[in-house]
Amino acid sequence: MTSPEPTPDATPNASADDRANSPGTKAPADLIITRCTALVHDDHEQIGFVEDATIVVRAGRIETITTGSVDLSAADHPAPGLSAAEHIDARGQVAMPGLVNCHTHTPMVTLRGIAEDLPIEEWFNDFVWPIESNLQEKDVELGARLACAEMIRGGVTCFADHYFSMDTVAAVTAESGMRANLGQAFFSSQGAEGREQSLDFALRHRDTADGRITTSLAPHAPYTVEDADLAAAAQLAREHGLLVHIHASENRDQADTSLARHGRTPIEVLADAGLLDTDLLIAHGTGIMERDLPVLARATGRIAVAGAPRGYLKFAWPTTTPVRALRELGIPVGLATDGAASNSSLDVWESMALTALVQKFTEGDPRWLTSRQALHHATLQSARAVGLGEEIGSLAPGRRADIILVDVSGPHTQPVHDLAATLVHSARSGDVRTTIVDGRVIMRDRELLTLDVPAIVREMNERMPALIDRSHGKRIQDYDT
Amino acid sequence: MTSPEPTPDATPNASADDRANSPGTKAPADLIITRCTALVHDDHEQIGFVEDATIVVRAGRIETITTGSVDLSAADHPAPGLSAAEHIDARGQVAMPGLVNCHTHTPMVTLRGIAEDLPIEEWFNDFVWPIESNLQEKDVELGARLACAEMIRGGVTCFADHYFSMDTVAAVTAESGMRANLGQAFFSSQGAEGREQSLDFALRHRDTADGRITTSLAPHAPYTVEDADLAAAAQLAREHGLLVHIHASENRDQADTSLARHGRTPIEVLADAGLLDTDLLIAHGTGIMERDLPVLARATGRIAVAGAPRGYLKFAWPTTTPVRALRELGIPVGLATDGAASNSSLDVWESMALTALVQKFTEGDPRWLTSRQALHHATLQSARAVGLGEEIGSLAPGRRADIILVDVSGPHTQPVHDLAATLVHSARSGDVRTTIVDGRVIMRDRELLTLDVPAIVREMNERMPALIDRSHGKRIQDYDT
Repeated sequence: MTSPEPTPDATPNASADDRANSPGTKAPADLIITRCTALVHDDHEQIGFVEDATIVVRAGRIETITTGSVDLSAADHPAPGLSAAEHIDARGQVAMPGLVNCHTHTPMVTLRGIAEDLPIEEWFNDFVWPIESNLQEKDVELGARLACAEMIRGGVTCFADHYFSMDTVAAVTAESGMRANLGQAFFSSQGAEGREQSLDFALRHRDTADGRITTSLAPHAPYTVEDADLAAAAQLAREHGLLVHIHASENRDQADTSLARHGRTPIEVLADAGLLDTDLLIAHGTGIMERDLPVLARATGRIAVAGAPRGYLKFAWPTTTPVRALRELGIPVGLATDGAASNSSLDVWESMALTALVQKFTEGDPRWLTSRQALHHATLQSARAVGLGEEIGSLAPGRRADIILVDVSGPHTQPVHDLAATLVHSARSGDVRTTIVDGRVIMRDRELLTLDVPAIVREMNERMPALIDRSHGKRIQDYDT
Repeated sequence: MTSPEPTPDATPNASADDRANSPGTKAPADLIITRCTALVHDDHEQIGFVEDATIVVRAGRIETITTGSVDLSAADHPAPGLSAAEHIDARGQVAMPGLVNCHTHTPMVTLRGIAEDLPIEEWFNDFVWPIESNLQEKDVELGARLACAEMIRGGVTCFADHYFSMDTVAAVTAESGMRANLGQAFFSSQGAEGREQSLDFALRHRDTADGRITTSLAPHAPYTVEDADLAAAAQLAREHGLLVHIHASENRDQADTSLARHGRTPIEVLADAGLLDTDLLIAHGTGIMERDLPVLARATGRIAVAGAPRGYLKFAWPTTTPVRALRELGIPVGLATDGAASNSSLDVWESMALTALVQKFTEGDPRWLTSRQALHHATLQSARAVGLGEEIGSLAPGRRADIILVDVSGPHTQPVHDLAATLVHSARSGDVRTTIVDGRVIMRDRELLTLDVPAIVREMNERMPALIDRSHGKRIQDYDT
């Protein structure tokens, strides 16, 4: 087992309180987690596990990770020189980087289960887009709250959201304690106003919520945003140093239609618009073709793809995100769930397992997408996908303290012969006991500390009849790729 | 929503205590569950839900299911005429038939995660079969106990087990409170003794554990059991009225090899042996071919297939169980997990969701294998697969009281637009709160009442070094289809 030794005393973000550096005189840390097994990455980004680890958190960041025995006789002072405002004894639990949901539409949890067992055309045109024409700020607020509750309980600490009324989602993100990259979606059918609002949102909310919120420009997709608007978005992204988050080549049909209508694949459309020379998060990409690979290889921006395999199976799309080809190009593939209206859940843990299973099946290779590869997608690759590759995605000194504690003592996760396999293939999102973002505990022993689920559900159900009414015959957009 | 009205007063198995039938004078029931939403089947086996249901259990069977308000002011007397030794208030929970794991090898949980990311040949020949040559009764006992604990916590009330040392598994089944169909596996390499032991086991244990244990003859597979032994097994099954449980056409390679070597598919081998004229449970069947369908159509026995899709994905097999073709033949497909050494878990809830997802994908049809179809596989089809189609698999008067209560109040299962979709695609095995077998509560509010997981795991880990030692170079069998 690879067990790289983390540097025990690196304090790259030492605060003023840390100047007195000798043990015993140091100011108390904010949080100490003891006796866990910690998932770490070595210098080659190989996944390893450190037994009996102690993680010290100060000012929202991991200060140190050490291994070895710690005296727990005094709860407030777990070891000489180690004192903290909060101490978590995590015996029997695995500490790992919080999961990142690299592409979702949080408010769509409101529509979970409303349009089942349908092809995507009917799902969009007959249900989702008609219903979304009724959408009020309050629906977005309640949906985002419920989504955050679900994600926190499933060990997700950060999400990339692409939707409407994003001021509201930003407020909920702040309230929930989560980290997020947020983008206000726009279509060309909105005229220039949609793009301007997306930019305005991105600039106003960038680095808010104590830095937990970052932002993107969010053109919806090449089939709903015209070339000139895509090019304008690329220009704005470069000018303002913003990530662009877009749906593209979601499925093979879209790619085929794009080729037939415009002689170019959706990826080629992005390239022509200059979007491959920006930092770009592409949602889905199951329609990425062989001819797209050299185009992607020439990209000068940091390109990433978010894969949400559950929905592709449910829509019966013929292909899945081409993880192997993208890896050969050095393009990270982050884990995602899409919205719950198509995916049925925001369970990134399930996305991790399904990514491994579906990749093995579609590549016809049981040796491909091992558990350690799946954990690499879940950690560093997902962090990179949302533009936070230096801040989150690994448990290492200096990184933001986005940490989850996972109980592997249950009968379904025992015995443990290979902890990576246990985590990917046997553990479930419900095994996450504790969720920590920026050093703050937002779920403790499965109790949510920032959100009130029964109150959210009660209010949501009161509003439901008005929200799901489709008698008006309107829809916000047509799905016609 | 289809909400068939169950007959409120059918008491097909009334005991002597029931003779005084007027309300108020009736002897107390054993268990009453009130205020749940109950999953029921109508006369056409369509899935429906009854709101505000009351389920009365007596002598291990469901006596009545009624709907409507029940006075809960006195806990011991929830309604006039309704008194019970035990009362469960199941507000906000869904009562459904316990899940059935139609093909597993319970003791193999001991090897969960020991042979990962490998093709099946290496998995068998380099890990599983060498390790199984070390297997002691005690390993089987601890493995079966841990497996039962995992299954009870996942809402599984019945399993079909195909393994060695099955006397021990029978004792654990009795102790756990679960229901099972058990078969002692045999190979032709054991000579006639293997088959005789399998028969002896089946006859000795049939209808034991208060009727919760039924038995099968369990030839391993056409590639390890010769034609004459298969024919002898068929003869014994007919003679003794036993189910036969066998692996067959597990994957396409096995079918191709069988054709190349013997000019017959594995299904044709079964037919020639007379096994299709017995009641037969075929594990996997992902290699079932077009030419097998008329052969299966001519079967005079009750044939069923158990599908465990997770393992097929993990081994990167090119096909999955042909559910659609089997349905056209009227052959039930039950849900299964196989052993945890290949499947990583005994999570039948996950098998239910994966069956729906993988079927949509492989058929290229999002309308196929709807949530209601998945629930039909999980209930009546699974019950039929293990030979208990008249006893379990639906909540109806006269059926055995194998009931699970599922909490759908969590943020990941709200709101509920379509309860069938919520159960199949959003709920998880961890949402099962209470597991009841034969009217006896064996998990209450997630607490296991018959098994001690920490003690099992402790003892298992002590024995592990001896069990997993492969230095002897032996194996119990060769995988060479």
